[in-house]
Amino acid sequence: MEIVPTNKQRIIRTLRCKNRNVIGTLGKLISTMSGAGADIGMIKTYSMGELYNVRDISILANDDTHLEAILEVVSGLPNVTILQVIDDVLDWHIGGKIAVKPTYPVTNFEDMRKVYTPGVAQVCSMIKRDPEQAYNYTGLAKNVALITNGSRVLGLGNLGPVASMPVMEGKAALFAQFTGYNMFPIFLETRDPKKFIETVIEISSGFGAIQLEDIETPACFEIEQELIKRIQKPVMHDDQHGTAVVSLAAAINACRLTGFDLKDKVIGQIGLGAAGQSIARLMHLYTHHDVYGCDVSPEACQQFEAAGGKCGNLEHIMKTCDVVVATTGRRNLIKPEMIRKGQIILALSNPYPEINIQDALDAGAAFASDGTRVNNILGYPGILKGAMDVRATKIVPEMYIAAAVAIAASAPDRELVPSAFDPRLHINVAHAVARAAVMAGVAIVHPDEDYYFEKK
Amino acid sequence: MEIVPTNKQRIIRTLRCKNRNVIGTLGKLISTMSGAGADIGMIKTYSMGELYNVRDISILANDDTHLEAILEVVSGLPNVTILQVIDDVLDWHIGGKIAVKPTYPVTNFEDMRKVYTPGVAQVCSMIKRDPEQAYNYTGLAKNVALITNGSRVLGLGNLGPVASMPVMEGKAALFAQFTGYNMFPIFLETRDPKKFIETVIEISSGFGAIQLEDIETPACFEIEQELIKRIQKPVMHDDQHGTAVVSLAAAINACRLTGFDLKDKVIGQIGLGAAGQSIARLMHLYTHHDVYGCDVSPEACQQFEAAGGKCGNLEHIMKTCDVVVATTGRRNLIKPEMIRKGQIILALSNPYPEINIQDALDAGAAFASDGTRVNNILGYPGILKGAMDVRATKIVPEMYIAAAVAIAASAPDRELVPSAFDPRLHINVAHAVARAAVMAGVAIVHPDEDYYFEKK
Repeated sequence: MEIVPTNKQRIIRTLRCKNRNVIGTLGKLISTMSGAGADIGMIKTYSMGELYNVRDISILANDDTHLEAILEVVSGLPNVTILQVIDDVLDWHIGGKIAVKPTYPVTNFEDMRKVYTPGVAQVCSMIKRDPEQAYNYTGLAKNVALITNGSRVLGLGNLGPVASMPVMEGKAALFAQFTGYNMFPIFLETRDPKKFIETVIEISSGFGAIQLEDIETPACFEIEQELIKRIQKPVMHDDQHGTAVVSLAAAINACRLTGFDLKDKVIGQIGLGAAGQSIARLMHLYTHHDVYGCDVSPEACQQFEAAGGKCGNLEHIMKTCDVVVATTGRRNLIKPEMIRKGQIILALSNPYPEINIQDALDAGAAFASDGTRVNNILGYPGILKGAMDVRATKIVPEMYIAAAVAIAASAPDRELVPSAFDPRLHINVAHAVARAAVMAGVAIVHPDEDYYFEKK
Repeated sequence: MEIVPTNKQRIIRTLRCKNRNVIGTLGKLISTMSGAGADIGMIKTYSMGELYNVRDISILANDDTHLEAILEVVSGLPNVTILQVIDDVLDWHIGGKIAVKPTYPVTNFEDMRKVYTPGVAQVCSMIKRDPEQAYNYTGLAKNVALITNGSRVLGLGNLGPVASMPVMEGKAALFAQFTGYNMFPIFLETRDPKKFIETVIEISSGFGAIQLEDIETPACFEIEQELIKRIQKPVMHDDQHGTAVVSLAAAINACRLTGFDLKDKVIGQIGLGAAGQSIARLMHLYTHHDVYGCDVSPEACQQFEAAGGKCGNLEHIMKTCDVVVATTGRRNLIKPEMIRKGQIILALSNPYPEINIQDALDAGAAFASDGTRVNNILGYPGILKGAMDVRATKIVPEMYIAAAVAIAASAPDRELVPSAFDPRLHINVAHAVARAAVMAGVAIVHPDEDYYFEKK
């Protein structure tokens, strides 16, 4: 069983288990933990002996009480002793998850002459004469500012800047891992959109792109729109567009897996928050058909209609739409009796979907998925890299659509989406986004064919 | 001959030289280049053959015209061919000099669970409950913001933010190299001190310390003072205090090398800019004696007197002071006939000192040095590390004095200052600064004895 990421507080622990060398012991242990509700992750051999093996078994539990219950059940097993419960998530966080490193180690006086005085003066003067050179001789072409005020972190709400640091460091670590580029998390204090905007503009000159993250609605809309207007570099609010890109990719493939083309389907979006509105807009741009939406908030519906969407209600959408995407955060909102035969259901709320996958399938859905596979990590690294590689002055919808199509095309044959660890994925996405930027006329740099074969 | 760093635009090039295997060829080549005014740096063998060797010879020249002249002279030599003139300073700058890397490589799904969702949620919630935990489980304890608006870069003046990037990346690369901590360069657009201050405060929550760099006077004074008041973390304007620390270290050792104690000496400071005033202030705090200063600007003199200094003029200082520090930027300001027998002269302006070392010694100075050895890189890494390791709420003068004493004590027996590449140096400085912070009552964390033996 694969353990999938969710956005809420399930806990990861590693159990160090000493098992007697009796055939069936490990299998029995796994089944027992699994029967107690644990999701089993990586199993590593810690040591092997004549009489005993010690293994580290990573599990996901719902919370501390659930973990206690699992340990209780396991303690009744013969031939098994739990030596230690290791919280290695915390271990991985000690001292932070990203580090700023010199590109070249500076190990002697001659090195220092090159990276610092006096060598550096000639590079500064060159950039002063020709500011374009900063894209060659500094990190400008690779530096992304990841900016948040921590006002809407995962499903945890307004944590403020400091408590949101682990999320942003995680995003920066993954971005570096998948692109080789640099993401610098910057944490703002303010919740005032005006002050947020002015601060980002003030610090933007050292960055090639801006990613906005985990900002509450409606501030996130005003902030992103104003920054796009005022900064001639890629600016992306990931919670809107990253989510929309990956959702569109999933919808494209869900149709493909059931033998249809998304462009022929009637699409409904349940929940019109930041992600929902963005998903609906992108679906509309991709299919050129009306997309139906609904939300309990009348303001959200008005906003959606003002942007050209068609507002309905839950029942209407479930009755009329072929593809239904839900991002409401409301568990079990979709009842099995609402499902129509052959419908495609993407119930994306984490950790509890609007309907369980199995229930949806049992009720006749042709395809169903929850939000555990549809993770932004599939999108933002390649989107930003592609946009920066051609120095896009902004990210236009065509680039998001290109990213979604590239993600969909990168999935293995029978899979909804690719793995984030497929090294081709992020390159495919970057190249598709770069091409789309050139086609849309927002690229400053026009790479030649070689770019698309680059393997850095 | 050692090539020393200067702050102006001398250029570094590597000459790839193909020499016939005739005894004396390399020696003759070196002497010829040196005779033409080149400073010789690292010499590396690129390839060896039966008849020829190819060597890469790094040189410093004054400018392109000077480089042409050197090449012209060398081209007349028998047995030597210059294959290539390599600008490896530029090579080292391609793509920037720092990179953001994951602390742990994230190579599979299980890793991602730990650094990102769902693992991260538990760490965020913990920090929300207990914000102190951010010092353990994020980079907060190691992250320094290096902030500039590029309004006074090296000796190059107001380059603005983008053209100052190579300097700041260089400082960040060296900081990482020498401490293992993280320095994030942030470039501000504004030259308005009020807006500068507000922006720094707004972005400060993700950083454990703030280093200010290359900001014009008088804005730099207002900015630093206000930030120290409003941010309860170490804030340091390196051009003032870093320079003062290293100058005090040099003055302490210049006295030691000539058999005196700086505390018994009358000290004069020529030039009362940001560095000069800070040097004079630190010298006063260290010696508890009056320090005499002079400057062509009446405002600078008034400021200096308001801060408790004694203003005189150049002649008066040269006549009455035992130790004279000059930071005017004015070449040959000090005439040989002004030097008194036994005087200690630190003519620190780069690249052209107020008096040449040899001229000062010939005129009777007991000791003379220029600014090429007295480099801030000896100070800021250890000062910031020490202040952050004890979570100092600010950096008080006792900490700067402790840093200077530690730098002086780290110098080899007959040297003025230690090498920046001595691994003990930055640890010694950090420990001295941390101890001074604890003694001064500005430390939040009080490390036990082990800290001072830590070898990370």
